[in-house]
Amino acid sequence: MQTAQADYFTAYHNLKLTRDADGVLVVEFHSNGGPCIMNAQGHTEFVDAFYRIGQDRANKIVILTGAGGDFIIDVDWSSFGDVSDPGVWSQVHDEGVQVLENIANIRVPVIAAIEGRAYVHSDYVLLANVIVAGDGATFQDVAHYAVGVAPGDGIFTTWSYRAGAGRAEAFLLNPQPLKARTAQEWGVVAEVVPNGKTLARARELAALYLKAPEVTRRNTRVHFIQPLKERVAREVGYGLSLEGASAADLVKSMHSNTEPEAATAGVA
Amino acid sequence: MQTAQADYFTAYHNLKLTRDADGVLVVEFHSNGGPCIMNAQGHTEFVDAFYRIGQDRANKIVILTGAGGDFIIDVDWSSFGDVSDPGVWSQVHDEGVQVLENIANIRVPVIAAIEGRAYVHSDYVLLANVIVAGDGATFQDVAHYAVGVAPGDGIFTTWSYRAGAGRAEAFLLNPQPLKARTAQEWGVVAEVVPNGKTLARARELAALYLKAPEVTRRNTRVHFIQPLKERVAREVGYGLSLEGASAADLVKSMHSNTEPEAATAGVA
Amino acid sequence: MQTAQADYFTAYHNLKLTRDADGVLVVEFHSNGGPCIMNAQGHTEFVDAFYRIGQDRANKIVILTGAGGDFIIDVDWSSFGDVSDPGVWSQVHDEGVQVLENIANIRVPVIAAIEGRAYVHSDYVLLANVIVAGDGATFQDVAHYAVGVAPGDGIFTTWSYRAGAGRAEAFLLNPQPLKARTAQEWGVVAEVVPNGKTLARARELAALYLKAPEVTRRNTRVHFIQPLKERVAREVGYGLSLEGASAADLVKSMHSNTEPEAATAGVA
Amino acid sequence: MQTAQADYFTAYHNLKLTRDADGVLVVEFHSNGGPCIMNAQGHTEFVDAFYRIGQDRANKIVILTGAGGDFIIDVDWSSFGDVSDPGVWSQVHDEGVQVLENIANIRVPVIAAIEGRAYVHSDYVLLANVIVAGDGATFQDVAHYAVGVAPGDGIFTTWSYRAGAGRAEAFLLNPQPLKARTAQEWGVVAEVVPNGKTLARARELAALYLKAPEVTRRNTRVHFIQPLKERVAREVGYGLSLEGASAADLVKSMHSNTEPEAATAGVA
Amino acid sequence: MQTAQADYFTAYHNLKLTRDADGVLVVEFHSNGGPCIMNAQGHTEFVDAFYRIGQDRANKIVILTGAGGDFIIDVDWSSFGDVSDPGVWSQVHDEGVQVLENIANIRVPVIAAIEGRAYVHSDYVLLANVIVAGDGATFQDVAHYAVGVAPGDGIFTTWSYRAGAGRAEAFLLNPQPLKARTAQEWGVVAEVVPNGKTLARARELAALYLKAPEVTRRNTRVHFIQPLKERVAREVGYGLSLEGASAADLVKSMHSNTEPEAATAGVA
Amino acid sequence: MQTAQADYFTAYHNLKLTRDADGVLVVEFHSNGGPCIMNAQGHTEFVDAFYRIGQDRANKIVILTGAGGDFIIDVDWSSFGDVSDPGVWSQVHDEGVQVLENIANIRVPVIAAIEGRAYVHSDYVLLANVIVAGDGATFQDVAHYAVGVAPGDGIFTTWSYRAGAGRAEAFLLNPQPLKARTAQEWGVVAEVVPNGKTLARARELAALYLKAPEVTRRNTRVHFIQPLKERVAREVGYGLSLEGASAADLVKSMHSNTEPEAATAGVA
Repeated sequence: MQTAQADYFTAYHNLKLTRDADGVLVVEFHSNGGPCIMNAQGHTEFVDAFYRIGQDRANKIVILTGAGGDFIIDVDWSSFGDVSDPGVWSQVHDEGVQVLENIANIRVPVIAAIEGRAYVHSDYVLLANVIVAGDGATFQDVAHYAVGVAPGDGIFTTWSYRAGAGRAEAFLLNPQPLKARTAQEWGVVAEVVPNGKTLARARELAALYLKAPEVTRRNTRVHFIQPLKERVAREVGYGLSLEGASAADLVKSMHSNTEPEAATAGVA
Repeated sequence: MQTAQADYFTAYHNLKLTRDADGVLVVEFHSNGGPCIMNAQGHTEFVDAFYRIGQDRANKIVILTGAGGDFIIDVDWSSFGDVSDPGVWSQVHDEGVQVLENIANIRVPVIAAIEGRAYVHSDYVLLANVIVAGDGATFQDVAHYAVGVAPGDGIFTTWSYRAGAGRAEAFLLNPQPLKARTAQEWGVVAEVVPNGKTLARARELAALYLKAPEVTRRNTRVHFIQPLKERVAREVGYGLSLEGASAADLVKSMHSNTEPEAATAGVA
Repeated sequence: MQTAQADYFTAYHNLKLTRDADGVLVVEFHSNGGPCIMNAQGHTEFVDAFYRIGQDRANKIVILTGAGGDFIIDVDWSSFGDVSDPGVWSQVHDEGVQVLENIANIRVPVIAAIEGRAYVHSDYVLLANVIVAGDGATFQDVAHYAVGVAPGDGIFTTWSYRAGAGRAEAFLLNPQPLKARTAQEWGVVAEVVPNGKTLARARELAALYLKAPEVTRRNTRVHFIQPLKERVAREVGYGLSLEGASAADLVKSMHSNTEPEAATAGVA
Repeated sequence: MQTAQADYFTAYHNLKLTRDADGVLVVEFHSNGGPCIMNAQGHTEFVDAFYRIGQDRANKIVILTGAGGDFIIDVDWSSFGDVSDPGVWSQVHDEGVQVLENIANIRVPVIAAIEGRAYVHSDYVLLANVIVAGDGATFQDVAHYAVGVAPGDGIFTTWSYRAGAGRAEAFLLNPQPLKARTAQEWGVVAEVVPNGKTLARARELAALYLKAPEVTRRNTRVHFIQPLKERVAREVGYGLSLEGASAADLVKSMHSNTEPEAATAGVA
Repeated sequence: MQTAQADYFTAYHNLKLTRDADGVLVVEFHSNGGPCIMNAQGHTEFVDAFYRIGQDRANKIVILTGAGGDFIIDVDWSSFGDVSDPGVWSQVHDEGVQVLENIANIRVPVIAAIEGRAYVHSDYVLLANVIVAGDGATFQDVAHYAVGVAPGDGIFTTWSYRAGAGRAEAFLLNPQPLKARTAQEWGVVAEVVPNGKTLARARELAALYLKAPEVTRRNTRVHFIQPLKERVAREVGYGLSLEGASAADLVKSMHSNTEPEAATAGVA
Repeated sequence: MQTAQADYFTAYHNLKLTRDADGVLVVEFHSNGGPCIMNAQGHTEFVDAFYRIGQDRANKIVILTGAGGDFIIDVDWSSFGDVSDPGVWSQVHDEGVQVLENIANIRVPVIAAIEGRAYVHSDYVLLANVIVAGDGATFQDVAHYAVGVAPGDGIFTTWSYRAGAGRAEAFLLNPQPLKARTAQEWGVVAEVVPNGKTLARARELAALYLKAPEVTRRNTRVHFIQPLKERVAREVGYGLSLEGASAADLVKSMHSNTEPEAATAGVA
């Protein structure tokens, strides 16, 4: 049985929101019902969505997951327009900081249920308190260094916070798919379950967490997320500014046809 | 051979203090000589005890351990009185911050020798520089989320600092006994030795550390503890305030008989 | 093919600098072509060297390594003179902070290729973004607690940052050689390769990183190193002051012939 | 000439929003068109309002002001219900942090035009970059210590940030009306103009600021507010928790009829 | 009417402690009943005294003042012994940090009533929330730069925090008596009253503050002191280490008879 | 009498360096002997100059001043080339952070002697410990908002640190010449002397400061500058990135001929 839908539940192209009678909200990333591909519209909508989710006190637990057997698998850079235009990047900067602050400000426990590829914005995932991963899940960053752009949007801040800086730096400079088990050894993933079982396990955990009173649930989240929230507030704006300059340099290099092949291939 | 006892050595109901001729102070938590159960009196006395220990320059090394084959195994919530009373919680808040600052301000190397169950206030343990655990030792948090209270008293700050935030959050939201070996893999426990051998191994380490001059010993501790001391000063007061509101909500929910079973069971 | 040498390339007794046509600078620590032994002259020169390396925009990637099958194997304390003289230690303090800030301010990716013994100033190594270690490499700290001096020069700050505080504290209080594989499990070493292959692997990584545009490379380093740079700026000055007092106490204790054997042996 | 109204312009009972053709948004606090009295509904709505204002890139400059010759003159505590109820205060805490973060996240220059009494939530005002005050304006805090409640909602954080901690502490412990000229000497108010002229002067400044390009305007705000935004994120949650416990103690003391007269009088 | 004296009231040579029936504790610094001169014994005792004061919940308000028409007028450096001895300075360092943390941890409002000369450790004074000064009061630092020692014991941290860094730096590098009125303009002194009236005015303020409930009083102090407490924890240890090296250099220079006259004169 | 010149003394086009027999180094900004105009060459050279000055232990006191009766009066933006080119701005960013860190790392007291116009990079001045200003001196920021660029290069960080954030924000958003007396009231300027007398007064102060031993002088600077050094390390990189995007937007707006007049006029 579901509770009455809030007005924002149907407002987003790339998020399917459902909430059960206990207040467990499932946020499913998707593109037309299949695996989610990040684009400019999503970038803008996610800011609003997570703010609304955070402000809605009817949400008692939040579960992040993806549709079609994956989390987010790719990014459509072209949808952002000319990222070397300072006005375009100003919006990316402002939204990119705000969306992470908004997820951090969800003041109830957040659980991520990750299947398949978490290849883009796994920083959203790492803002969860607990990550349950399918045994076939892989983490990767296909959106930054691999295509010639500095990983400044929170991907380093969150991976550094949860996996340690050494692992994060090597992982982001030479991105390769990272298996769920390895992510667990690194302290990022809390539990690995068979593929297809992550959402069910997340719901079990949600039911456990719901046994505590409302203020306990809310204040536990507030306390746990505070150090990461402060790091986001301190680091991600600068990171996105550095990424913007990096993206502008990539665009310039592509125009001049003298730049490294990988970068050109990656973004073209 | 022991050195002359200081006046505070016999002042505490739940601590047995002994110091050898080299200045190695062993602090043994206990309740009537058996496994220690935390209560309000202990909460108050530990503040004073660790302050005195820290100020006494005759202490050259401090070893924390427990009696009866355990560290601290449970908490007697009823001894605190009505934790929803703001005056009662004010004292819990003030003492709870102060005790951790006082342990952090012990300015000689601190070693923990942990046998059996460290189920309550393992944050005291994690303020040691080095933890030696028996192979049957287990870490657990039976005092917070399991009974419906937010884990805000330093348990998150210390576990997050030493084990990583991801592990700490999952561990504290769904508390299960954590084996010594796993705690070692997490970077929390330095050495695992056979049950019954932790204190002896701690004394060996103490003897090693004592080979360095006084100022070296003191300043090494000062340097090593500084980042955690700053986190304690920044996070634990807020954490305890959040925990206080959470405890008040639990009390209220128990009175109204409409609250989740686990919480009710846990605290009743 | 190498590019034209910069004027500082030949300025240092303990560093061999070579740069290839792609701008990959290899910084080789050595003493007369063999394994490097740290001394006062090196301490001063490294400050200047890393500053020059950081300011030279012709350096596109920097690789740190050692000659003779090792990184740095020992320290010649006597070369520093009387470390209990406040004027002598003032210079050690100022240089010790500055050299780490200068490495942190190298604004291109830094890779360490470590063979054999990294027994002194492995903090330099841990300021790299990525560490490639030979399978016979070992990390150790022979310069501090083992000889009776507080490890305050950045060794704790960097190991704590990359390996976690618990591991760093135990490792530095009772220093034992740490194998490359263990350092990898701790998140410090990114890759372990056969002995003799680290520099080749570092060059492969350098070639990968070079595919990104200039600003991407620079800004990625700037973003990744920022939290550690801030910790260095906040912690290492105090650490070196504490180490200075500790060293003065050691000198005093040696003069009075009443001090622990290990310390006396270590520094004599 | 005004631009098309955004949908949120008419959504709030206590805010009148108007925007001119240049994108200068005037936010006028009021209660039924007269001086604004803070209440629970406003507390909730302001959170949403400032979020929407901050996200709307059509706002080029934001001016905060009040209706009826004042800013906010009083607070209706009774509207909040039983502030000793942990569930009630949980909402106050969450909203109280969020509203300040949302004002801080308005990413265009913010100007405050203050006439008459700024007696409640002058912290909103101090999140502006520039404050223009009428020569008859007074600042005061009638909502906290004067009625027996700890001033933890950001009033100390913002006054301490702009006026210095010494002034803020004395002012908040023994609240007296503070004249505009004194606030200017303290560095809080930038300009004092004749009564009735503040809005006009704010518009002049807005016109000046508008001469800079969009990204310059936005990034200047982002840069200037960052230190205060970080202080808000670090201090205000704890402050509100401390205030909540304080309010609960006040309620308790009033029930027992044994409490200080001022407090009783203030809140009754 | 006074309440029963606590046991620590008569424990200190340089502090006279009296508490009235409302719990207002007056802490009077003195030397044999006349103006206080700082010495090693006092340095040690103040640590204990302020800890005990802070832990005693019967203290409802704390007033700091001095006997004989002054606060602290001078320091007896010779009482500290050989400050170039690392063991001696280790104790100065540890006590110097701890005493400031202990004053910061007094969790009720602290008022300073300053008459005459506050020439030594005015940092104690600046840890009060509110300073009332006689119109003839003067602040000065005769214990540091004037005698050739770096002002690292908290005097810079507190003056920088309350007066601004620029004023603090000039004041401490070229120490001259600072009048109460100027200190008020700087935001350090809250009120200037006629000589001889400061204690009476402090008692009036205490009576005002006492009208608020217990938790309000305690939590207001906790909230207000937090930023300064964090600065003390972060800065003063390093400051004292730097001061120790400076003092050692001064001692050395005096022995060699080749040092600047002012320094020699100052300490001799 | 001057000491032997160091090799870097004659290396810079815009700095005249002279050092007397006591080690007082006077750093005079100039352009061909007249008032200094900032340009790209100076921007690069100042980085090196202040690093060398900071490393040279023969410098006992450093005085910053300007030639021709002014400090720095204007900036030649055209010398920087196309500031919207990401490669160009990358260098501005890196140098801009580094130069402030290098001034902060001058580890002896720094005095500024300011005559006439300090219209550009007064942040260099505010990194001095003590500022002596002629009574005709004025501070201004002609290089940022007045010409349409965000003031992100340290000008806000330093003014906010020394004058307070409120004053800094208003001053930088609507830049007007600020008189020496007002800057003194704000706590920025320590002493105001007749025009033409600042350097003499700075030398008097230098002579006073020189009476303290070497380590006292060095460590006092280290202690005093630490909080500002940390703010520079945390804020200025981001500030310069935000300024870079702002400058790119300005260039774009000028090309499109649709931008505000002031900006166009200012940079053209």
